[in-house]
Amino acid sequence: MFAAPAPADRELMIQAVGLAARIDRRPWPNPPVGAIVARDGEVIGRGAHQGPGTAHAEVLALREAGSRARGATLYCTLEPCNHQGRTPPCVPAVLASGVARVVVAVRDPNPTVAGGGLERLLDGGIAVTLGVCADDAIELIWPFVVTGAFVRPFVCLKTATSLDGRFAPAARRERAPVYVTSELARHEVHVLRRWSDVVLVGGETMRADAPRLDTRMVTSEDACPACDPIPAVATSGEPGDEWTGRRHVVFTNRRSLNPIPASSPEKSGQALRVVECDECEGGIDPASILERLAGLDAFTLLVEGGPRLAASFLEAGVVDRWVSYTAPVVLGSGPRWPDFAIGKEAVPDSISSPRPEIESGTVSFTLTRVARCGPDLKAVWDRVPFAATRDRLTDGSASQVPASGGGA
Amino acid sequence: MFAAPAPADRELMIQAVGLAARIDRRPWPNPPVGAIVARDGEVIGRGAHQGPGTAHAEVLALREAGSRARGATLYCTLEPCNHQGRTPPCVPAVLASGVARVVVAVRDPNPTVAGGGLERLLDGGIAVTLGVCADDAIELIWPFVVTGAFVRPFVCLKTATSLDGRFAPAARRERAPVYVTSELARHEVHVLRRWSDVVLVGGETMRADAPRLDTRMVTSEDACPACDPIPAVATSGEPGDEWTGRRHVVFTNRRSLNPIPASSPEKSGQALRVVECDECEGGIDPASILERLAGLDAFTLLVEGGPRLAASFLEAGVVDRWVSYTAPVVLGSGPRWPDFAIGKEAVPDSISSPRPEIESGTVSFTLTRVARCGPDLKAVWDRVPFAATRDRLTDGSASQVPASGGGA
Repeated sequence: MFAAPAPADRELMIQAVGLAARIDRRPWPNPPVGAIVARDGEVIGRGAHQGPGTAHAEVLALREAGSRARGATLYCTLEPCNHQGRTPPCVPAVLASGVARVVVAVRDPNPTVAGGGLERLLDGGIAVTLGVCADDAIELIWPFVVTGAFVRPFVCLKTATSLDGRFAPAARRERAPVYVTSELARHEVHVLRRWSDVVLVGGETMRADAPRLDTRMVTSEDACPACDPIPAVATSGEPGDEWTGRRHVVFTNRRSLNPIPASSPEKSGQALRVVECDECEGGIDPASILERLAGLDAFTLLVEGGPRLAASFLEAGVVDRWVSYTAPVVLGSGPRWPDFAIGKEAVPDSISSPRPEIESGTVSFTLTRVARCGPDLKAVWDRVPFAATRDRLTDGSASQVPASGGGA
Repeated sequence: MFAAPAPADRELMIQAVGLAARIDRRPWPNPPVGAIVARDGEVIGRGAHQGPGTAHAEVLALREAGSRARGATLYCTLEPCNHQGRTPPCVPAVLASGVARVVVAVRDPNPTVAGGGLERLLDGGIAVTLGVCADDAIELIWPFVVTGAFVRPFVCLKTATSLDGRFAPAARRERAPVYVTSELARHEVHVLRRWSDVVLVGGETMRADAPRLDTRMVTSEDACPACDPIPAVATSGEPGDEWTGRRHVVFTNRRSLNPIPASSPEKSGQALRVVECDECEGGIDPASILERLAGLDAFTLLVEGGPRLAASFLEAGVVDRWVSYTAPVVLGSGPRWPDFAIGKEAVPDSISSPRPEIESGTVSFTLTRVARCGPDLKAVWDRVPFAATRDRLTDGSASQVPASGGGA
């Protein structure tokens, strides 16, 4: 049914993935998509989707190729859409362009649309190849995939600990946080921030470290959106109005906490936005924070900061992806995981095999990727199994090692 | 100087590594060594060293090959020795055999011997290749390498934790430990035990779980010594005389604790051996345990069990290798790392870059290997950098990915 890939397909699809990643802003709730039109290995059209209401990547690439598209090959990181949304469906445009061949990384995971784009291309007499660079393409749209096209927000937890499970100690000088992990790991986190609408720390981290939560380590070589995330803190205490030096959000349970007006004109861009949330055992209820994200036009949340905030999100069962960095040091003391409640059942006799927790789906993850990150160990754990998702979205025709860079 | 490898070299050296690993007993304080003589790809001689006073692998392999060795190739997992020990040096035997070519995985790391084996072979007109399967070969002799040929015992720490750094909770039924990690991970640990002279748990683990500490999951396909390790417990409390059901050792600070005579003839093999050690802050001093190992003819120690025992060895600064398994579950409660003291200095402002701890060398490791182990994450951390050691022992002529199986 689907044609086998050609030798140059992988290289050209990697370029399409790169186009999808290097965008001006996060395209949520639409997925990032890149497309390339190539003829005899020469790229004659490029496109990247920039978000709702703007043209799709395939249409942009075909438009640039113009009449030269006839007989050429179209590379799409995602199955071309077959339904009328805010923009017309792409499949008719692909058929009308006269391309001879379409290479697609993954099927459209969106369960709410008609689908069948690939089948309609095949019916139109076009050779279709599926599954090229599938892992890289899925990585780009992972938040879109696991939330069911953002029916709810995507939550990524990032932790950085020592070998003995210690988080970084509090800063001892103003604005000089102690880092457990290497500069390379922190650079990766800055890229991760670019894929996130909101970056959240807890009140303890904010008061102890005053982290800037910016993306200053991102370089022009990093494939990620050009826009910064919104810094946020979850606290029942009083935040300083100059924290992060940028506009930020305070999730709090205190009605009395009012936005502090900027005291001088140059601070007007730094005004607080205070969002009232529910309380939970002395902290801010994560479920409540997630509910409020829609009001901030935010679909993806990166949870950073200390063990108490991380534990509250794990306890609430709302973490979709966990990116953990482990530094090759032993600290022996310092902040560590608090006790928290997972489910209501006691630990069973045997956690593994048959692992009741995994079957209940509340506290288990799957290991998507492990890698060195300089001297540190990086592991990516997902609640929705990555490999099984890839097999589903490529009809089982892809089996690659996941890319090390990329999306949230 | 050294000849480039031939196409079949890797496959034949892997066989030599397999011979070195499948031995009747651990050859400590000598290193495991395997050798093969091959002619036109056909193996005509095999040898594996079985320990002090027995023939070296090269000699055994050349003996089996006999006169057919003339013009053949000798594969050695370790540089042939050039000095008179308990057995004659191997280099003259290699020269006399008439082999045309010698392929060696790594140089002899032993700093106390003359060395120069490879150079003498070259002077004898033999073509020599260095660095084939170096990682697998170094893995075999790693305890020998990092301890300086067992000037002191080799200590391997094994931990198995949840994603939130919890150790397995105590057994709720007799002899039914709760496992955090998968069966595959536990199988690997059983192989690791075979490479260890003594396997140690703390008193809390012994009383809570009564672990068998055996190697029942080892199969005939596992390349490891055929002998079992000695189970041991470090405790200031009273051990049961039937713990593990086998002869075991109790490291204790109590003079009054006497060996309990076997109460029936069939238990005579299970008699306790009690070794008096120094105390440290309510526990048994790890340094003291290491000193007593020589009296047990033990060179390699595998530290298993709970967080308190692990912390005491880390605090003492005596862990050479740390094999950590992380299961994809979140427990939220249960045993976790205690606070312990590392060095006397407070945590510096920035742990990474320039990382004073790493430079002082007391609490840092390097990441040797990461891998999936079923659903779990396995990471091997070494105090002595593995890659740098490989480069040193191969004159920089090897650059392979470390093997996933193999020695302690």
